[in-house]
Amino acid sequence: MTGAREPMLREITVLDEYGQRRALFIPAERPLTVFVDKRELVTLMTLGAEPELLVLGYLVNQRLITSVSEVESITVDWDVGAAAVRTRAGIADIEARTAHRVVTTGCGQGTVFGDLMSEVDGLRLPDAATARIRQSTLQAMLETMRQQDSIHRKAGSVHGCALFCGSQMLFFVEDVGRHNAIDTIAGWMALRGVQGADKTFYTTGRLTSEMVMKAAHMGVPIVVSRNGVTQMGHDLATRLGMTLFGRAANKHFLCYTGFERFDSEPIPQAATVRVVAGA
Amino acid sequence: MTGAREPMLREITVLDEYGQRRALFIPAERPLTVFVDKRELVTLMTLGAEPELLVLGYLVNQRLITSVSEVESITVDWDVGAAAVRTRAGIADIEARTAHRVVTTGCGQGTVFGDLMSEVDGLRLPDAATARIRQSTLQAMLETMRQQDSIHRKAGSVHGCALFCGSQMLFFVEDVGRHNAIDTIAGWMALRGVQGADKTFYTTGRLTSEMVMKAAHMGVPIVVSRNGVTQMGHDLATRLGMTLFGRAANKHFLCYTGFERFDSEPIPQAATVRVVAGA
Repeated sequence: MTGAREPMLREITVLDEYGQRRALFIPAERPLTVFVDKRELVTLMTLGAEPELLVLGYLVNQRLITSVSEVESITVDWDVGAAAVRTRAGIADIEARTAHRVVTTGCGQGTVFGDLMSEVDGLRLPDAATARIRQSTLQAMLETMRQQDSIHRKAGSVHGCALFCGSQMLFFVEDVGRHNAIDTIAGWMALRGVQGADKTFYTTGRLTSEMVMKAAHMGVPIVVSRNGVTQMGHDLATRLGMTLFGRAANKHFLCYTGFERFDSEPIPQAATVRVVAGA
Repeated sequence: MTGAREPMLREITVLDEYGQRRALFIPAERPLTVFVDKRELVTLMTLGAEPELLVLGYLVNQRLITSVSEVESITVDWDVGAAAVRTRAGIADIEARTAHRVVTTGCGQGTVFGDLMSEVDGLRLPDAATARIRQSTLQAMLETMRQQDSIHRKAGSVHGCALFCGSQMLFFVEDVGRHNAIDTIAGWMALRGVQGADKTFYTTGRLTSEMVMKAAHMGVPIVVSRNGVTQMGHDLATRLGMTLFGRAANKHFLCYTGFERFDSEPIPQAATVRVVAGA
């Protein structure tokens, strides 16, 4: 794999509401066209933080490859905005397996609903006896995220994803699309052979059906979002037995699904009043 | 057109960080498979606020139709999650014109970069002499949005879009994907033959390249977002001569591009200290 890097911030001049000039940073965004064995597959719009891991994770999450060993090399060249993937044995019926995406659309909806539901029953997540999370562990995770230096803090308009083992952050990445960010995490896991069963996945993005499916395919039973959940994200997580936490920031969060994995702790007396008031 | 309606909120039970049960509303999200003259075209994941306008606007924004007169009827049936579009004369080479979408992905990136750039030069927006906006008009818009009753306020996790003429809101819609919301606005405009030249488009979503392109195709020269801008959104708007405002909430906003359309007003004395301090 190459280690292609490009600047991730651009400084622009803006006017505030009084017409005063200000300097502002915005996140970079560049097209990366993926070629698999010289055949054009897809164009990803990316911040460009980890292009090789993004491409690898994209192939994994699209189920175009099942193991990193199928890939011989991934070469990213920003001068032409291209990622050249060379596989060892080619990808069987790549035409057919990518064609179905023609009938999808929307923000982060990359799979047809029918396919989605039929996939669910084939997935098994570790049970609540082995994969659990404590309130204090989650709060430590959120504190780590709060302190994390990020493009978002400097420029906004990006989504961040992180993989945790307990309260330990293993990998953090940001991208302009939250799906690119989770695909990059999948690429990182695939490259290192990291399993998801004892991990927790954090995202700043909404918990849509596809975010839930991608986490499930990564084998991660617990997913935490700073944002909310959509109905299909909620339905899928319930069906998968996945535990979803949302509105997670500072010391607060809500558990949407999979309550059985969550070890809550009693309300500290000092907090009682606030919590009752906020209930 | 049918006027299919389904509930847009679902109540779920969640646990807070102390393990206490709470009732919470989340936005509905349902698949709507679009059939054009009985051929399956796309599956949209939608809140379902205005499914017929969404489908119409989707066809317009995908440039599959150029006028509403090409459509004989749009029939939405939520029982089967299907929207049946009957055209008067069919859509020429619909296969070829939808096939290119196979090489796209990411959150809100539905067009290949190359296509995007080649499209830009064919688009003309009204010049700054005819299409301008005053600070006070923008602040009135933002106050209208602040007071707008919304699914977002009740349940979060949706994007809102609105079309304004001056400070007058003409149409407001929310959806789980911000692209569905802007497509619904395009459908509303197409159905009524509303032109974009003297309008302002508001979105809660980020100003990505595709949001900018869709606004440009709607002929709207001024776009306002509560959120930020990505680099390609900035590049495209600059090339189009479109005026972008971001971080727009309460009385504050930033003008990212097309400064020449913006009539700012001097800093009120009372605000001077705050502004200088915040600069």
